[in-house]
Amino acid sequence: MIVVMKSGCRKEDVDHVVQLIRERGLKDHVIVGTDRTVVAAIGDKRHLDMTAIENASMVDRLVPILAPYKVASREVKTSPSVIPLGPNASVGGTKVSVIAGPCSVENEKQILGTAQAVMKAGAVGLRGGAFKPRTNPYDFQGLGEEGLKLLSKARDETGLAIVTEVMSIDQVDLVAEYADVLQIGTRNMHNFNLLMAAGKTQKTIMLKRGWSASLNEFLLAAEYIINEGNTNVILCERGIRTHETYVRNTLPLAIIPAINRESHLPIVVDPSQGTGHAYMVPQMSKAAVAAGADGLLIEVHPDPEHALTDGAQSITHGAFEGLMHELGLIADAVGRTMQLGPN
Amino acid sequence: MIVVMKSGCRKEDVDHVVQLIRERGLKDHVIVGTDRTVVAAIGDKRHLDMTAIENASMVDRLVPILAPYKVASREVKTSPSVIPLGPNASVGGTKVSVIAGPCSVENEKQILGTAQAVMKAGAVGLRGGAFKPRTNPYDFQGLGEEGLKLLSKARDETGLAIVTEVMSIDQVDLVAEYADVLQIGTRNMHNFNLLMAAGKTQKTIMLKRGWSASLNEFLLAAEYIINEGNTNVILCERGIRTHETYVRNTLPLAIIPAINRESHLPIVVDPSQGTGHAYMVPQMSKAAVAAGADGLLIEVHPDPEHALTDGAQSITHGAFEGLMHELGLIADAVGRTMQLGPN
Amino acid sequence: MIVVMKSGCRKEDVDHVVQLIRERGLKDHVIVGTDRTVVAAIGDKRHLDMTAIENASMVDRLVPILAPYKVASREVKTSPSVIPLGPNASVGGTKVSVIAGPCSVENEKQILGTAQAVMKAGAVGLRGGAFKPRTNPYDFQGLGEEGLKLLSKARDETGLAIVTEVMSIDQVDLVAEYADVLQIGTRNMHNFNLLMAAGKTQKTIMLKRGWSASLNEFLLAAEYIINEGNTNVILCERGIRTHETYVRNTLPLAIIPAINRESHLPIVVDPSQGTGHAYMVPQMSKAAVAAGADGLLIEVHPDPEHALTDGAQSITHGAFEGLMHELGLIADAVGRTMQLGPN
Amino acid sequence: MIVVMKSGCRKEDVDHVVQLIRERGLKDHVIVGTDRTVVAAIGDKRHLDMTAIENASMVDRLVPILAPYKVASREVKTSPSVIPLGPNASVGGTKVSVIAGPCSVENEKQILGTAQAVMKAGAVGLRGGAFKPRTNPYDFQGLGEEGLKLLSKARDETGLAIVTEVMSIDQVDLVAEYADVLQIGTRNMHNFNLLMAAGKTQKTIMLKRGWSASLNEFLLAAEYIINEGNTNVILCERGIRTHETYVRNTLPLAIIPAINRESHLPIVVDPSQGTGHAYMVPQMSKAAVAAGADGLLIEVHPDPEHALTDGAQSITHGAFEGLMHELGLIADAVGRTMQLGPN
Repeated sequence: MIVVMKSGCRKEDVDHVVQLIRERGLKDHVIVGTDRTVVAAIGDKRHLDMTAIENASMVDRLVPILAPYKVASREVKTSPSVIPLGPNASVGGTKVSVIAGPCSVENEKQILGTAQAVMKAGAVGLRGGAFKPRTNPYDFQGLGEEGLKLLSKARDETGLAIVTEVMSIDQVDLVAEYADVLQIGTRNMHNFNLLMAAGKTQKTIMLKRGWSASLNEFLLAAEYIINEGNTNVILCERGIRTHETYVRNTLPLAIIPAINRESHLPIVVDPSQGTGHAYMVPQMSKAAVAAGADGLLIEVHPDPEHALTDGAQSITHGAFEGLMHELGLIADAVGRTMQLGPN
Repeated sequence: MIVVMKSGCRKEDVDHVVQLIRERGLKDHVIVGTDRTVVAAIGDKRHLDMTAIENASMVDRLVPILAPYKVASREVKTSPSVIPLGPNASVGGTKVSVIAGPCSVENEKQILGTAQAVMKAGAVGLRGGAFKPRTNPYDFQGLGEEGLKLLSKARDETGLAIVTEVMSIDQVDLVAEYADVLQIGTRNMHNFNLLMAAGKTQKTIMLKRGWSASLNEFLLAAEYIINEGNTNVILCERGIRTHETYVRNTLPLAIIPAINRESHLPIVVDPSQGTGHAYMVPQMSKAAVAAGADGLLIEVHPDPEHALTDGAQSITHGAFEGLMHELGLIADAVGRTMQLGPN
Repeated sequence: MIVVMKSGCRKEDVDHVVQLIRERGLKDHVIVGTDRTVVAAIGDKRHLDMTAIENASMVDRLVPILAPYKVASREVKTSPSVIPLGPNASVGGTKVSVIAGPCSVENEKQILGTAQAVMKAGAVGLRGGAFKPRTNPYDFQGLGEEGLKLLSKARDETGLAIVTEVMSIDQVDLVAEYADVLQIGTRNMHNFNLLMAAGKTQKTIMLKRGWSASLNEFLLAAEYIINEGNTNVILCERGIRTHETYVRNTLPLAIIPAINRESHLPIVVDPSQGTGHAYMVPQMSKAAVAAGADGLLIEVHPDPEHALTDGAQSITHGAFEGLMHELGLIADAVGRTMQLGPN
Repeated sequence: MIVVMKSGCRKEDVDHVVQLIRERGLKDHVIVGTDRTVVAAIGDKRHLDMTAIENASMVDRLVPILAPYKVASREVKTSPSVIPLGPNASVGGTKVSVIAGPCSVENEKQILGTAQAVMKAGAVGLRGGAFKPRTNPYDFQGLGEEGLKLLSKARDETGLAIVTEVMSIDQVDLVAEYADVLQIGTRNMHNFNLLMAAGKTQKTIMLKRGWSASLNEFLLAAEYIINEGNTNVILCERGIRTHETYVRNTLPLAIIPAINRESHLPIVVDPSQGTGHAYMVPQMSKAAVAAGADGLLIEVHPDPEHALTDGAQSITHGAFEGLMHELGLIADAVGRTMQLGPN
């Protein structure tokens, strides 16, 4: 960390900062510049709250140098991780993996029909919510365990890996019994107790970025999971909150090169949540693959006009099939291939 | 809700939207304008996912008319609510209530010393974290139950109401045993399972706004609590994420008049989290009271340079005492009085 | 426009709103819903300030129905526009057009060398700033007319169309004398006097989105130009301000499908400004083409480490050549072809 | 500046960075930490584009240490500046100065009536737009010179200082002839040519913050003016763009302590633009004064329901009079007094 002193600081101010650094077991190094003096604190400070030093007299500000994450970083593991997605597929490496399905499991006919459709079109995973985090308490909250059973049946029929959300610690064991991948939703990225509970399972975890989380916070949330012994983490970008109103969320695809540079974990993109409008999903899906995404999470519904949740951003079976063909062309163009699914 | 059709839509497009509205048990009303046709859907749609209609042919967009919240709204309860803050104090109405204390309970001497100091300066509540939601898994995570016991001891010695955070459902009973007010932190505003668990207690809940939550989402989170039978909810604004970097969060005080207009619930402001820098806390505390805040949540530490958490935004005992005097003058100027505490 | 009344409004409140609507020469239409009454104002209100009605008693809020833009909209011209880019090239339609070059014209050797390099790699336009809008008054401000002359010389040698920024009205004639395309930078998107001056020339205008402009404001800025008689407007997305810090700007590619839906104007993307980091430029360039961009504006420098401006986001001649090859593959994959340049 | 090297960099990478620093005439200083090496570049770099160094091999990122502004900074002038507001008033120091009036000058009766009303209530300045920057080209664009003449007449009748916007260089002389203070609007904060033209006059300049400008950019814009020889700059905060929708802009009052710390220039607040809703103006005006604002810019209209521009955020004569009384109480509470106007 670098402590930047205010202009006009005196020797005793600098000495005091040096003392605060040494108290914390770190080495100090003072540089007197032409206008400003800075004090470097040397050593691993990831477990210390250094921000308290900002309160010392004549300190202007603190500049962290080390990234706060460790086990999720490229420094610790230099090659990209390939993470299992159920028994037959994976995410990461040279393949592009597509997970598709409805926002919510609504009934048997719907989920089995969509499972067949996305499997035939080339998906490797089936998404579908059984427990739904709804902003509005009056909205449909999901089928619960009944939904999990239907997802399990869809896996039996299609061979697709099941990806579904877990919203609280007491659901972890239940969801882990039925699903291949536990999804931590955007609203829970900072629910540290849930992250730790997910980390104690051996299931693959799909971690969605919080809608205003920083890159550091995103990787630190992954770190919470990995620190519990579970290294199977897939990151998922699903859009951030900005001033824009023509989208439900702004989808910042530049996070893909940033994650590739900072972390060994694979990153997939959710263009459905990431835009909020079905008409944007094909173009943004292709953009994500061109940008280097390791996979996609796409909302598909047999009849979006009558979907119980997220109808506005769901595409039809037919649209998905056409999109998968186009994604194959993009994958080729960037030197990757589509991960083969059970079809 | 208003369905805005695209320019050039045909009669069958409008008829189809009318049918989708009627299917949902609502009444329709078509208005043909000079350039656009709109279809109003009449009836209470708070339990329906209407967004699916966006997928119908030639629909441009949907415009909700009703606010999504109900029991938190001013329509349902027109007079401002006054919420108990422990046995001796309250938040709301004509009084301004100040809750102060350290970010974390660190040890007995620290918490008892600060409790005495803030009580003497006029605070009515003591804040202090026993369970800490830390972005970084390597940071100090709080003393847990030991911290709760120390808070309880501080109440015995000072008479201050205890406000402390609960991070997960399994902590609710434990925290409720020791605290007067359960705080739901910004990272958990969308943790709906926790909101419902908090709603099942009879404790006052201090609900912090998520750092990118909308006003609607904030009130809907309160609605989750109230719907479980607990109407004792205090809202707390603690800053939002923006492009600004001279603050840790941007503190949008205009939410005070907005909440006053939309809801009967009281609103307090956290100028410590809301700025991230101790030097800004006095000016923003005074601004919040002038803007009509029902109270403040202020981080105070005996020695901010050595605080284990959030030192950068904590003010000293002396600074707090001076600030309380100034806040009294502001309260007078806006026709309110400071809530009398145990001192 | 829809006027939403507050809950509990009386008949005289509604009558008053009706009167305000009629005073403005519009027709009114009242709908009494179960909870709320709304009043539709029918007619073209694009020239009226309707927001004043918000002040009437018991008005909750106003909801505009018509898009505020007209001549830039798809309603007025349903087929996509193809805009000339100098005498030999164009932007829009089925081709993808790449404009490349340094942030600033620094000297003859630099600009002619880069012009040759990007021409050979397949670019159709040369970008380069002669007048530089610099946030910091102490930074290099560009070569001025000398820079324009060098750009003109580069055109003579390579056949590339010249794209360069105009910062103020008094520069318009001068820049128009040398350049094929006048660029309005992000800081000037709301400089309406400059927009009108640009609209009075017959030059193609490249209009960059303001870094916090809404979609409506972006198209209205284009409308300012078109209303002066110049329909040759190319839109350019160059990133917006958000809370993200791993990029200099957040590049929201979903604006491409949104513009395609709302407007007939072509849209190009600037992945250099749009990210701020050279290492992100290739991935985001490919993403933009996959998302349907009509072209790209890329910063290329012979020696980025020694660039006078924007070195951090400039790529080398070699990197650009490799990128152009990859962009051709992406264009094929989305059913487009690269616009052939002078090479 | 600090250059942070990537983990695993070699000696030749560091040597190369050292060379790039020395080439620019600066001194280097290498610190080898436990995980990272950093290289400090010592000397005043305000005129160099250092970001190009980011392109060098194994550079992770650059951290500026010096603030980019100079003459606007507190380092250069440690005492707060008091800036003239016409012949009889000023902004800055211990007084609170209120400038009020309509968004636009609409006609003689309106502007003279409002001038009398705000003067009697205690304002020291009259605001009113003659040239209006309108996002929408179809909206009312102001009366132009006729508006300036009416403002001048209002000054003759009331003694109020006239504050009005200048939108382009060719308007500067004309506006300077009639006005006491030239306002640079939020859309032009980055219009550097206009800033320089304003700096060449001897008029006081009221500089509004761009709606997504950073603090650094705000002060650098002031620096553009001051560098031309005009030190009479008043800063004005008018709200920023965020995800919030219950306001037209988010008003970040914490910029007041930040400006107080960084700059000697006075800062006023515009609660009308800063919220967009008349009902919020009183509470936010009081908050601004409590936070330490040196003044306010408030939109007042005789009949907001019929205002030609910005009616939604204008308050009535009566509301303004009541507000001024309350502001006097707040000023007292924070140890300041209201600047006496001509009444």
